[in-house]
Amino acid sequence: MKVFLISIGNELLTGKTINTNASWLGKKLTMLGCRVENQITIPDSDTAISNSIDYFMNTDCSCVIITGGLGPTVDDITRKALFDYFGTSYYFDEEYWNILEDRFKKRDLKIPVSNRNQALVPDNGYVIHNPVGTARGLKFKKNDKIIFSLPGVPIEMKSMFESEIKPWVSNQVEPFFTSTIRTTGIQESVIIEKIDMVLKKENDYTIGYYPSIDGVDIKITGKIENNIEKLCNNITSKLGDNVYCTDERSIEEVVVDKAIKNKITISLAESCTGGLIGHRITEVSGSSKIFKGGMIVYSNNAKINNLGISRECIKENGAVSEETALEMSRNIRSIFSTDIGISVTGIAGPTGNTAKKPVGLIFVGLSTKDFNRTRKFQFHSNRSNNKRKTSQVVLEWLRMELNDVK
Amino acid sequence: MKVFLISIGNELLTGKTINTNASWLGKKLTMLGCRVENQITIPDSDTAISNSIDYFMNTDCSCVIITGGLGPTVDDITRKALFDYFGTSYYFDEEYWNILEDRFKKRDLKIPVSNRNQALVPDNGYVIHNPVGTARGLKFKKNDKIIFSLPGVPIEMKSMFESEIKPWVSNQVEPFFTSTIRTTGIQESVIIEKIDMVLKKENDYTIGYYPSIDGVDIKITGKIENNIEKLCNNITSKLGDNVYCTDERSIEEVVVDKAIKNKITISLAESCTGGLIGHRITEVSGSSKIFKGGMIVYSNNAKINNLGISRECIKENGAVSEETALEMSRNIRSIFSTDIGISVTGIAGPTGNTAKKPVGLIFVGLSTKDFNRTRKFQFHSNRSNNKRKTSQVVLEWLRMELNDVK
Repeated sequence: MKVFLISIGNELLTGKTINTNASWLGKKLTMLGCRVENQITIPDSDTAISNSIDYFMNTDCSCVIITGGLGPTVDDITRKALFDYFGTSYYFDEEYWNILEDRFKKRDLKIPVSNRNQALVPDNGYVIHNPVGTARGLKFKKNDKIIFSLPGVPIEMKSMFESEIKPWVSNQVEPFFTSTIRTTGIQESVIIEKIDMVLKKENDYTIGYYPSIDGVDIKITGKIENNIEKLCNNITSKLGDNVYCTDERSIEEVVVDKAIKNKITISLAESCTGGLIGHRITEVSGSSKIFKGGMIVYSNNAKINNLGISRECIKENGAVSEETALEMSRNIRSIFSTDIGISVTGIAGPTGNTAKKPVGLIFVGLSTKDFNRTRKFQFHSNRSNNKRKTSQVVLEWLRMELNDVK
Repeated sequence: MKVFLISIGNELLTGKTINTNASWLGKKLTMLGCRVENQITIPDSDTAISNSIDYFMNTDCSCVIITGGLGPTVDDITRKALFDYFGTSYYFDEEYWNILEDRFKKRDLKIPVSNRNQALVPDNGYVIHNPVGTARGLKFKKNDKIIFSLPGVPIEMKSMFESEIKPWVSNQVEPFFTSTIRTTGIQESVIIEKIDMVLKKENDYTIGYYPSIDGVDIKITGKIENNIEKLCNNITSKLGDNVYCTDERSIEEVVVDKAIKNKITISLAESCTGGLIGHRITEVSGSSKIFKGGMIVYSNNAKINNLGISRECIKENGAVSEETALEMSRNIRSIFSTDIGISVTGIAGPTGNTAKKPVGLIFVGLSTKDFNRTRKFQFHSNRSNNKRKTSQVVLEWLRMELNDVK
């Protein structure tokens, strides 16, 4: 089933509020097996509302979900605009008004007169119950198309979607299956080249690529569960180690889960990332079981005096060097008594570079009781993105080592 | 000037990606004095693209900014769809292709053939330079309306908007002055109450409130520069210490700038924030001048063995206590030999709470050569937001102390 979304509100167009309602509905509807065909954001204006519904009526979408503009203030004109659009008369619902008055009374408040419009009911249309607020929704039918109107307050919109719209939608669509493959360290175009042959052998599926600074997510959807599972497995084996999970977890969650499972403790010595890797690991609830902490050594003195890096090592090789990274990882592991010690030193930019050491040059060290290794990376981005990319390769390396180390 | 926005991308409709481009553009355009009339999100489809441009052509908007679909994959059909819509022939730009090939070569990569479509140039239209990526933008003119097309990758879209579209827009609209007031630690409704009288005395201005987890930004715009400046000064003095700057800097930039100016060095001992405060400070270029580093002490053992907190202190008061926070800040200042030592210990959640110590309970310590102080905070959010709010109150406290400490 194809669905259309209309978001009403000046605050969305001026960038004051990010339209999280639209993405929440998009996700929910997609997971139910619908296709969201269009989403349109318009101001609180009669003309804009009727134009956008006209636009919807001319598509092949079966239903539209309108959000916003059902509140009690003068800005909130959606209700009257819909009554006009569908040419319906309406009446004042005394019973509902009494309920609203009571609710306000219980909080020692007098109900403002402006709330009266929330008790209006169309003669040609239905009211949608609001379990958490005062703004009830509306439902209309025209030319076999369904028009839902919900308030824009996220908590109210969500609860009304779940209770009234979701059951109706589920009845309209065939069941639908989705698989996710999350990758890092591989470009979208390379993925497409690698899995081209696998895709050509199958049909009856939809595939989407979702790149971000951390990696590319792949989503496969289709009607036959077994086929989707098989396709997902084939793609995963083609992409090998670049796949860090086939569910919705972040790479930090995968790392923490693996470390907990294998009972492996981790410590960090961060220079150029300044604490970002520790921050990412500690975003995961339960990380304290395996993450013992670490040091942020943002100056040479801190590296020497607090982390015990030898003055000679820094003098000979520089703070940004393989040798320093190696010592950092070895020492942090020893100081924090963990199974793995990870270190990062590099030049995040935009300054601090030399002729031989450009912005974006990063060394990572990894130390266990069995070995000490370093890796070199060269990123080409701004300060913030160089830090983020560094944290990502560190988490990826940790993930790979957690398969083996103990 | 009225502006129309079209966002292209299945990932926006399926809710995989939140449409932050639209809100970013909405904010920028509003501040330039434009009115964003409509924003429409459509899938990567020829028909949807031409329908949405038709919709734009029928409005009284002077220009449309289209984002998305200029990448190298088969999904990315915006370029060809626009060539079709405007009925223009096009040619392959060998020179640009050579530049792209070189860029890939420098990173030891072979350029995929799919990137070739990024070198296509319309005969009836213009190319918009992309300083940070491979996807160039496009510009067309039809019936006195201007059509801009930019890539959807935020960093590319933003830089191309700033360099090419903003100057053009600024030329179309009357000159316009904007002041920004950034606040933290005060709610939007309290701000409005506090500045109500100031606002009533003035006219000819527009005011917008932009709340986020870190605080509320206030934007004032108007046509007479002196009036806006005066109004901004009056509001700032009403809000007092809650204003951390009247420009576009983040609070971490303000802290780093102040510390550099006063030559004050800082170290951190982070427990529940796990590195986030260090990460935020080191997002600022130049922070290495004043930030020496610190420790992430995520376990009691790390607090005791590495930071030297007395076992008795933790036993008697708990790791999350005023006393522990105090010792942490004193010790980190001494270990890293800095002017200020800051510490954080708390319960980020969702677990780890006790009857007496609920989720969201945080103690912050601040130590200088003259004093040691602690503060207690109680947040009521999820793990990630509790961490973020903690980092914000720490930065705010640092900012305030940097006025005095030496």
